[in-house]
Amino acid sequence: MTMLPTNNRQVVLKSRPVGIPQAEHFELVSTALPDLRQGEFLVRNAFLSVEPAMRGWVNAAANYSDPVAIGDVMRSFSAGEVIASRHPGFAEGDQVMGMLGWQEYAVTDGRTIRRKIKESDLPISLSLGILGINGITAYFALTEAAQPRPGDTVVVSTAAGAVGSAVGQIARIAGCRTVGITGGPEKVRACIDEFGFDAAVDYKSENFEKDLIAACPKGVDVYHDNTSGRISDVVVSQINKGARIVVCGTASVANWEPWPLGPRVERHLLNKAARMQGFLVWDYEHRYEEAVARLAAWVRTGQLRYREDVLNGIEQAPDAIAGLYRGENNGKRLIRLQHG
Amino acid sequence: MTMLPTNNRQVVLKSRPVGIPQAEHFELVSTALPDLRQGEFLVRNAFLSVEPAMRGWVNAAANYSDPVAIGDVMRSFSAGEVIASRHPGFAEGDQVMGMLGWQEYAVTDGRTIRRKIKESDLPISLSLGILGINGITAYFALTEAAQPRPGDTVVVSTAAGAVGSAVGQIARIAGCRTVGITGGPEKVRACIDEFGFDAAVDYKSENFEKDLIAACPKGVDVYHDNTSGRISDVVVSQINKGARIVVCGTASVANWEPWPLGPRVERHLLNKAARMQGFLVWDYEHRYEEAVARLAAWVRTGQLRYREDVLNGIEQAPDAIAGLYRGENNGKRLIRLQHG
Repeated sequence: MTMLPTNNRQVVLKSRPVGIPQAEHFELVSTALPDLRQGEFLVRNAFLSVEPAMRGWVNAAANYSDPVAIGDVMRSFSAGEVIASRHPGFAEGDQVMGMLGWQEYAVTDGRTIRRKIKESDLPISLSLGILGINGITAYFALTEAAQPRPGDTVVVSTAAGAVGSAVGQIARIAGCRTVGITGGPEKVRACIDEFGFDAAVDYKSENFEKDLIAACPKGVDVYHDNTSGRISDVVVSQINKGARIVVCGTASVANWEPWPLGPRVERHLLNKAARMQGFLVWDYEHRYEEAVARLAAWVRTGQLRYREDVLNGIEQAPDAIAGLYRGENNGKRLIRLQHG
Repeated sequence: MTMLPTNNRQVVLKSRPVGIPQAEHFELVSTALPDLRQGEFLVRNAFLSVEPAMRGWVNAAANYSDPVAIGDVMRSFSAGEVIASRHPGFAEGDQVMGMLGWQEYAVTDGRTIRRKIKESDLPISLSLGILGINGITAYFALTEAAQPRPGDTVVVSTAAGAVGSAVGQIARIAGCRTVGITGGPEKVRACIDEFGFDAAVDYKSENFEKDLIAACPKGVDVYHDNTSGRISDVVVSQINKGARIVVCGTASVANWEPWPLGPRVERHLLNKAARMQGFLVWDYEHRYEEAVARLAAWVRTGQLRYREDVLNGIEQAPDAIAGLYRGENNGKRLIRLQHG
C-alpha cells in the first residue's frame, strides 16, 4: 500500500459573485486529510473540470441546484483513482469520476461518484469531457430532446466548445446538415476542419445575421442553444415548422438580475408549432453508461473528435471559470493536478 | 327542390389592418350566386364563426397561413346545410362545417369542408365551438401537447373563453387542479361556477401576480397560454420541474410590429427542464373525429359546458373581431344568419 497523503489542497468559495465568478471569489487553502471511516474511500484526483455551468452553481439566483456555500470546496466534476478504501464497492486502483470538487484528494462514501471509468483504453481525462458530462449532454440533448431527422438543418451555438462540437458531430453522424456558431475566425476554422460542420458562422462578425441566414438556406430544424441572447434571437427567427430548440446553456447572458429582456418567442413557436425546451443532463443519469458506450465507440473510430484545454496545477483553478467566459479556452477546459 | 337563392351577401376585406381588425377594414357586399358546376355544391350557412385568430389571417405579418387578400371574402369557419349538389360526396340536407367564409351562401367543391356534422342530436352551432375548432384545439392542446397527469396544476389563460373554458374542464376530467386566468369579476365567477375551475384569478386586478401565486401553492405544471404578454410572464415564473407550456394564442399582444420584448424564457426553461411549444390544431386534422366524439360525449353527460355569444345578422360581422379584443363577448362568438 502506498504511503497515504496527509495534506489536501482545496479551492474554496470565498465570496459570492454576482455574474461571472472571478479568481478573487475563490481561495486556495490547505487542510489535513481525515482518516477514512468504515464505508469511505480516498480518491486522488488527476483532473478537475472547469465548465460554464459553474457560474450557476455559485450564484445566489434560483437555479437547478443549491448554490455552493461560502467556505465550501468548489463543486466540480473530477476524475481520479482510488488510493485507499474502506468501502466494499470501491477498490484501490479503481478509476472514478464524480462530484469530487476542486481539490487534490477527496474522501467520499461513494454518493458523489457518478461512475466507475470502464474505458481504460482511453485517457482518464476524457471522462470529464467527451466521455463525461459534456459528451453525455450532447448525446442526450440531441438524440432525446432535439430528435433530429436525416436532412435536418441543425444549428449549434458555442459550436467549437466541448458540448457544441460533440452535438455537431453526433448530428452529422445522424445525417443532418450542421451549422456551427462560434466566436472568431480561428474557432470558425476549427468547426469546419476539426469538427466537420457543414458551415460555421462568426457571431462576432458584423454580418452575423446575414451569414447565419445564408448558412441555413432551408431554415433551421434543430437549434442546440448554449448561449441565449442575441445569437439565439437570430436563430429563432429562422426556424422551420416543427422546429426543436433545446436550451442547454445561456452563456451569453452575463447576469440574470435584473432579468434580461429579449424578443418574445411565443409567436415564433406558435406560427411554426415549434418547441423550446430546457435540457438538464441529470434527468438522464440512469442512462449514462449507454451514452458513454456510444461516444467511446465513435471516439475509437475517429468519428468523434474533441479538444482539451489543459491548465497545469490547482493554482490555475480560481481564474479558470472567468477565463471560459473570456473565451480564452480552446476545447474542454481541465486542470491537471501534479501530485508530489 | 327548394327555390335556389340568386343573391349572396358577403363580408370582404376592404383594407389591411395593422393590429386588430376593425369594422372599417371590412365591407358588406352583395353578389350574384353563380350556377353550380359539376363537382360543386351549395351550402346555406346557418352560423359564421368569429375568433381571435382572425387577426392573424388578415395581418400582413408572417403567420401560419397566407393572409386573406384585399377584396376576398373574409376567411372563417361556418356551418350550414347543403341545399343543392352536383358533387357525388355531398347530398342535399347534409350538414357541414368548413372554411366557408363570412357569407350567406358558399359554393364549394368540397375542399373547404372540414367535416360533415354527424352529431345531429346536438345544435349545429356547436360544430363551430365546443365541437369545432375551439373544442378540438382544447382537446389536443391539452391531451397531446401538455400531457397532464392527475394532480398537476393546470393554469389556463382566457379561461372563460371558448378554448380556455374547455381546456379547464378537460383538465378537470383528467384529474388536475385547474386555475383560470380571466378579466373581470363576472368572468372569474363564470370560471368557478360554470366551468368548474378550482380557482380563478382576475388579470385586471392590481393583485394579479400575488393572486396567481396564491392560487398555485404547488407551482404550475401545465400552462395553456392564450395570451402571451404580462400574464404569461407571471405564470412562467412559477413553473415546476418538467412543466409544459402550450402556446395556443397571443391575444394580449396587440401588435407584432415592432416585435415586443419580454423577460427571456430560456433560463426558466433550463432551470426547470421545462418546455414551451406552439400548438396548431391543423396538425391534428386527421384526428378531428376522435376529438369530436369525446367532446360530444362529455357535452351529453353535462361534464363539458360551453357558452355561446350569438350576434344576429351578417351586418354584425365587420365589428365582431374587434369586439372580441374589447372583451365584450361572453362565450364563443357566432353570427347567426337569417335567410329571407
